[in-house]
Amino acid sequence: MATIDLIITRTTVITMEGKGLGIIEDGAVGIDGNRIVIVDDSDVVEREYSSHRTIDASHKVVLPGLIDAHIHSGLGILRGVAQDTDNWMEKGLWPFMQFLTDDQRRAGSLVNIIEGLKAGTTTFGDYNGGMNDIVQNHIALGTRAHVCDMINEMPERMGDAREVGELYPLDSAVGEKKLQENIDLIENYHGSENGRITCLFGPQGPDMMSRELLLEVQQLAKKFDTSIHMHVAQGDREIEQMMKRYGKRSIPYLEEIGYLDERLLAVHLTEATAEEAKTVARSGAAMLLCSGSIGIIDGIVPPAAEFLEASDRLALGSDQAPGNNCINMFNEMKFTSILNKCRQRDPRVFPAWQMLKSVTINAAHAIGLGEDIGSLKPGKKADMIILDLQSPALFPTIQAPIRNIVPNLVYSANGSEVETVIIDGQVIVDEKIVQTVDEGKALADGQKHANELASQVRGVDTPLAKMMADGLL
Amino acid sequence: MATIDLIITRTTVITMEGKGLGIIEDGAVGIDGNRIVIVDDSDVVEREYSSHRTIDASHKVVLPGLIDAHIHSGLGILRGVAQDTDNWMEKGLWPFMQFLTDDQRRAGSLVNIIEGLKAGTTTFGDYNGGMNDIVQNHIALGTRAHVCDMINEMPERMGDAREVGELYPLDSAVGEKKLQENIDLIENYHGSENGRITCLFGPQGPDMMSRELLLEVQQLAKKFDTSIHMHVAQGDREIEQMMKRYGKRSIPYLEEIGYLDERLLAVHLTEATAEEAKTVARSGAAMLLCSGSIGIIDGIVPPAAEFLEASDRLALGSDQAPGNNCINMFNEMKFTSILNKCRQRDPRVFPAWQMLKSVTINAAHAIGLGEDIGSLKPGKKADMIILDLQSPALFPTIQAPIRNIVPNLVYSANGSEVETVIIDGQVIVDEKIVQTVDEGKALADGQKHANELASQVRGVDTPLAKMMADGLL
Repeated sequence: MATIDLIITRTTVITMEGKGLGIIEDGAVGIDGNRIVIVDDSDVVEREYSSHRTIDASHKVVLPGLIDAHIHSGLGILRGVAQDTDNWMEKGLWPFMQFLTDDQRRAGSLVNIIEGLKAGTTTFGDYNGGMNDIVQNHIALGTRAHVCDMINEMPERMGDAREVGELYPLDSAVGEKKLQENIDLIENYHGSENGRITCLFGPQGPDMMSRELLLEVQQLAKKFDTSIHMHVAQGDREIEQMMKRYGKRSIPYLEEIGYLDERLLAVHLTEATAEEAKTVARSGAAMLLCSGSIGIIDGIVPPAAEFLEASDRLALGSDQAPGNNCINMFNEMKFTSILNKCRQRDPRVFPAWQMLKSVTINAAHAIGLGEDIGSLKPGKKADMIILDLQSPALFPTIQAPIRNIVPNLVYSANGSEVETVIIDGQVIVDEKIVQTVDEGKALADGQKHANELASQVRGVDTPLAKMMADGLL
Repeated sequence: MATIDLIITRTTVITMEGKGLGIIEDGAVGIDGNRIVIVDDSDVVEREYSSHRTIDASHKVVLPGLIDAHIHSGLGILRGVAQDTDNWMEKGLWPFMQFLTDDQRRAGSLVNIIEGLKAGTTTFGDYNGGMNDIVQNHIALGTRAHVCDMINEMPERMGDAREVGELYPLDSAVGEKKLQENIDLIENYHGSENGRITCLFGPQGPDMMSRELLLEVQQLAKKFDTSIHMHVAQGDREIEQMMKRYGKRSIPYLEEIGYLDERLLAVHLTEATAEEAKTVARSGAAMLLCSGSIGIIDGIVPPAAEFLEASDRLALGSDQAPGNNCINMFNEMKFTSILNKCRQRDPRVFPAWQMLKSVTINAAHAIGLGEDIGSLKPGKKADMIILDLQSPALFPTIQAPIRNIVPNLVYSANGSEVETVIIDGQVIVDEKIVQTVDEGKALADGQKHANELASQVRGVDTPLAKMMADGLL
């Protein structure tokens, strides 16, 4: 009998492989090193393997670690200062963003990633400026990260006295500097930490850089063989800029310059028409959908239903703390389902099983990591989570004639039921406690930085400032 | 210096009184017996009172206990068996409901109430058949309950071979029996437990009983001086029944028979037109809005915006575990805001402050308990909760220039941050542990009953059964 590192046994295993969701009622998963070696009935696994550690997970459920395909963890320190307003970026974010230092950004990012991690996220599609710095948080925490720098040609301090709707000035020197940071990121970190860190390119949007730089990024993505993570039709602000600068909406523009293909991870599609969403889907590009964020920021449900008519490369993302305001894929699953049920006035659409796929196996394929993660299968990397079903919000457990575990994960769980998080074979969260970083210290350090930032911000003159003056905040 | 029972001090107090939300930055609350005696700056409270127990709540926030204005806790044992389907009641619930015993109902209710309680709900508008039994859970747990029996004239075992859309038979003997149970409830429990239990009448809907019984209930409500808690325009099923039976939609019918007035707590209004919603609002009736539930069950956002144009008697409810599927007012606040932002395509509507009012002071006024609960004010009953702000999901705390605490409560909290729940002056949840009932025992007992129920259900032939067969559940 071979001895392996860890067996999780006597539990409901949701493999996301095979027929339907591939659920095993009395199942077990065996892990050795950073790989899954067996997924089968408990009896079979226990007969074939012994292990250094065994977790009896009866009354629990095991499933693949969740994938947050799109997050700006570097905005973590700004949670709660920007919502219930029009022109979210200009009126909500910029009054604070212009003072944000690298240290504040990194400190906030660490707490954001901890939030997601404790709620079962194992892979973060982290998309932020300063990623050479922020990636250190993923390295320290032990999270899987699919990261890029955010490339644009926008001058610093955009918040200074710029009118809503004015065409952004573009500065090619800024663009070249940011592109170089993204190249450095790829060269320094791609494949590092045992393959836990993977890198790609992150142009911020077709409106925020010249056509030349966008095409240069595409050439480099081909050279480095990476995907391109980019906001596409993310809001009326973007569409307005595109119409002013090019006389074209974002998606027709991207189609014209040959940007719509399998390499593209198209984020949001907030303002995409039904036909544009289908165009993106048919091109082979993935859609990264951020329901909570776009709901708060724009009051819009993006055309994911139309995208799904032509492709299943749909993944979900939490986007950011100021505008969502949760870094939690359980929150995203529930919002995505209910918002789309309401968009189509049909309770049958976006069912629980489809939501779970959108944060596991389909998400993994969408972001190009489907060979390694997203399901529990021998040979894949060992990323998985264990939730306690003996929680009032997940009560009761019924296995037949209608099994209620998946609906309860999607519609009832809030992430606080996650007990164990395993990434790349390492137990990163054990009995709800982060093992790799001192959470209390991260919170205290982040709060100190938040205090510093808040003390800098002066003279905010926005709808939120009016609410503050009226005692409503 | 007077000595009182409890002081909570050195904290952010959201009083929901006075200008805006009445926030005190370094505040304290003093409690003696079941009443609030002082709410003021910490220095003032500590100078005027000593206390038997003091809670230092720095880095926390204190606010009024949340009000869940509409919940069927008796459906708790059915969580997760009925969603992603059309005809939720007939295809989702009835295959299970027809086997539900009183013991199973009560066991599931207990876990449901614990779920809400731990997430900060102190008052439950519990609306269920068998309330003379279920109310024992509220008595044992120490929760505040505003309860009624559910009166209808529908024969038992409605699930048996009845076609969707067929006019329900009405049985006046059933109606008289259920009415008597509601009268018994009022006579036995109204004002009991130091006033913690209050009772009213609960006709199930205008479609489920004769006009005569509906009017009899109204006469009794006047006699007992109670409100009437009733589903109104709760779905297309109800409207179809009303059109078939009376040739009128629900709200015009209720207006005609003189049912729209301050006494009515009108639940859902799912199918109300904009004009009908305004008619209800102008009549003085309250609207109890269940956003998560109606989103899952119907894919609809009810016309709360139109109601709010004419009235602020809006309260939120979790509705039930099978169809929502959470008993959690933090979930309801977030869903209500984002669903309505999307309904109106406007991120400014249903702001955080308004959501917080809808589960505290406005909810209290809506259900007729505004004199006693819903805000922190000397003389009011001591119902309040303390949340830990040192949680990743609520990070960071910023007090100026934009205070982020209320937005973070509404958009980021999931209820697991609630540390302390005080109801009627008693600490019912302390350091996240329920003090009055053994939670583990309640879960185990509920699970045993759920297993019994599930083993009874046979031959379910519904869209959910198909998903089960396809391995998608």
